[in-house]
Amino acid sequence: MTGYPAPLARVIEQLSRLPGIGEKTAGRLAFFLLKEGKESVLALAGSMERLKREMGLCPQCFGLSEIPAGTEEVAPCRVCRDPGRDNHTICVVEEPSDLMAVERSGEYKGLYHVLHGAIFPLNGVGPDALKIKELMARVRAHPPVEIIVATNATRAGDATALYLAKMVKPLDIRITRIARGLPMGGEIEYTDAGTLGEALDGRREL
Amino acid sequence: MTGYPAPLARVIEQLSRLPGIGEKTAGRLAFFLLKEGKESVLALAGSMERLKREMGLCPQCFGLSEIPAGTEEVAPCRVCRDPGRDNHTICVVEEPSDLMAVERSGEYKGLYHVLHGAIFPLNGVGPDALKIKELMARVRAHPPVEIIVATNATRAGDATALYLAKMVKPLDIRITRIARGLPMGGEIEYTDAGTLGEALDGRREL
Repeated sequence: MTGYPAPLARVIEQLSRLPGIGEKTAGRLAFFLLKEGKESVLALAGSMERLKREMGLCPQCFGLSEIPAGTEEVAPCRVCRDPGRDNHTICVVEEPSDLMAVERSGEYKGLYHVLHGAIFPLNGVGPDALKIKELMARVRAHPPVEIIVATNATRAGDATALYLAKMVKPLDIRITRIARGLPMGGEIEYTDAGTLGEALDGRREL
Repeated sequence: MTGYPAPLARVIEQLSRLPGIGEKTAGRLAFFLLKEGKESVLALAGSMERLKREMGLCPQCFGLSEIPAGTEEVAPCRVCRDPGRDNHTICVVEEPSDLMAVERSGEYKGLYHVLHGAIFPLNGVGPDALKIKELMARVRAHPPVEIIVATNATRAGDATALYLAKMVKPLDIRITRIARGLPMGGEIEYTDAGTLGEALDGRREL
């Protein structure tokens, strides 16, 4: 970033630390911010600061929860607070964004548990790096009827599901995994062999 | 952004106003910021705030210039302040980023003038929207020996160059435009017809 004035070089350096944003894109964004009105840049910067100040993890499910204004402590999240949710079912997901995706499906009325990752030994992520201890403590304190594992259909997601099954089985709690198969609108011709194999394997009576 | 907590929805909305960043990418970035350490997010936000607080336009060339700490006024930029620069030549560019690109070439030792755009009547950008009045005032006050027009090789860049030529000619100042032709490493086979035509047209004695 030779020749860039310091404030510009600083923004480019900071922006290029974001995922998927290289130095070139960072430069383009920085010049955009230079041209933008002061208010709208301050609104962007302010929204980031508020994100870190106002968002925390729910002490029960580790999903996202807001920090009420004037306090430091994170309140239980909207789902955990909702008396209308079925608290006999816990859906285990990898990330807060997965929780939101399941919520958007509108199909699920139980509670959640967010692991904050998946077991991936190659990257040094073992069970201890995830919120698995917390899940087990929660499950032992208030045993649910069913645990639905909604980790990704990836190696790490599979490894995590298997590990959870092994941990939960002795507790005599039902543990299931969400189905795999063709996505909605999926065409046989363009579906990869792995997915087709799993779709065949998981076939159901009509 | 249904179902997103307000601080998260706010960041996504702000980020998706950036060029080339849609709502999906904005969401991905927002979740990245959620996971990032507080310090590094505050550093990013702070760098944007400082960008708007510490950068202004040079009162002479309208390139970027820093606002010295503790003042409100923009100082002349590094190039305009440099007594070693040749002040008999002014290179006219469209944007501050173009000025920096010319600086990086290391080939130019004169001064600059940044127009902040190019004439593009279809988008309603006429000469008055650019720093052309300021250029003419500057040129009349201290006539340079040469004005080098380094606008883009686009229709708008061409229109701007022609307009400047018409304005400057009566002042009896030499006005030139940077050369067009094959870029370094360019291969004839893969060069578009327009560029090849201009390269032939601009051929020089060996």
